[in-house]
Amino acid sequence: MAPPLRLELSLPEWVADAVEWEHGFAGNDERMRLVIALARENVVRGTGGPFAAAVFERGTGRLVSVGLNGVERLANSSAHAEMLALALAQRRVASFTLNAPALPEHEIVSSCAPCAMCLGAVLWSGVRRLVWGALREDALAIGFDEGPVFPESLDYLRARGIEIVAGQLRDEARAVLELYARSGGHIYNP
Amino acid sequence: MAPPLRLELSLPEWVADAVEWEHGFAGNDERMRLVIALARENVVRGTGGPFAAAVFERGTGRLVSVGLNGVERLANSSAHAEMLALALAQRRVASFTLNAPALPEHEIVSSCAPCAMCLGAVLWSGVRRLVWGALREDALAIGFDEGPVFPESLDYLRARGIEIVAGQLRDEARAVLELYARSGGHIYNP
Repeated sequence: MAPPLRLELSLPEWVADAVEWEHGFAGNDERMRLVIALARENVVRGTGGPFAAAVFERGTGRLVSVGLNGVERLANSSAHAEMLALALAQRRVASFTLNAPALPEHEIVSSCAPCAMCLGAVLWSGVRRLVWGALREDALAIGFDEGPVFPESLDYLRARGIEIVAGQLRDEARAVLELYARSGGHIYNP
Repeated sequence: MAPPLRLELSLPEWVADAVEWEHGFAGNDERMRLVIALARENVVRGTGGPFAAAVFERGTGRLVSVGLNGVERLANSSAHAEMLALALAQRRVASFTLNAPALPEHEIVSSCAPCAMCLGAVLWSGVRRLVWGALREDALAIGFDEGPVFPESLDYLRARGIEIVAGQLRDEARAVLELYARSGGHIYNP
């Protein structure tokens, strides 16, 4: 008999009401504040690790999707915030690339520097811009691994037209990591 | 109103009957032949890109899960074979890591060298061994990108105890890539 051949990925129930979906998010700071708030809420409510991300239409700031770390909740080591945000955005626009001709440009904003897996996922997703808050070293400082990401890895994305902005509201983003560490949050895959 | 906050990932219907789930897969070659056959079937049936992967219990060769490229079918640029195989394996054992104390050691066998995203996912998954068939250059030769994977990326996994075997039945694995290219298969994210 075949084992299960399908699985569901979902965000926590509280997300639907915690986000102003119709709000336009004007600039880097406003977009980053949303993902930092979501990351903090994920910690406070105990629904996952201290990481959140969101996909926006780059020009208008229209919010397309959000993602929250759900590794333990979903028993899925790939359920990082960026992965869920990108997959939900692609589902919403019904395209495997957010860079399809009929679509406006998209960007992903993440509360923390993407790990090696998520950096690859960003490359395949079709977003044209990647913004993150806390730095790789901030994640390492509380015990998380980030995987094989090198300066050349970022150059690889830039060479394919993806703009990268690192450390946007870094202090506020790092504070969520520190909150998680202080509250005894589990460092899976240390 | 909130957009969809969940999504489903699934394998094609034909997979259930195409795999001998209770068969024990004795060694590298037998395990690799299964994933090459699945990759070929994915091309022939038109259900995705020319890539397949499977997770096995390392010692016994018991098959835990399989994965098939479903980027276009699922409208999800992260739906690579390795991602689906790892997520379905973790779902089956109900653990976000395949390296949990109560579990036997696991390995993943992929028909092609993992891209940057999948290499990161392998690191987080808890598998102790990674085997691939076709090489990065074989995928590049038919127009696929593999992302920022460097020799140092593989060293990073090895340093964390993951054994890597590259080029297992490479010629047979490469033949599936060439079949896909000859049959006019779409090279998404070139």
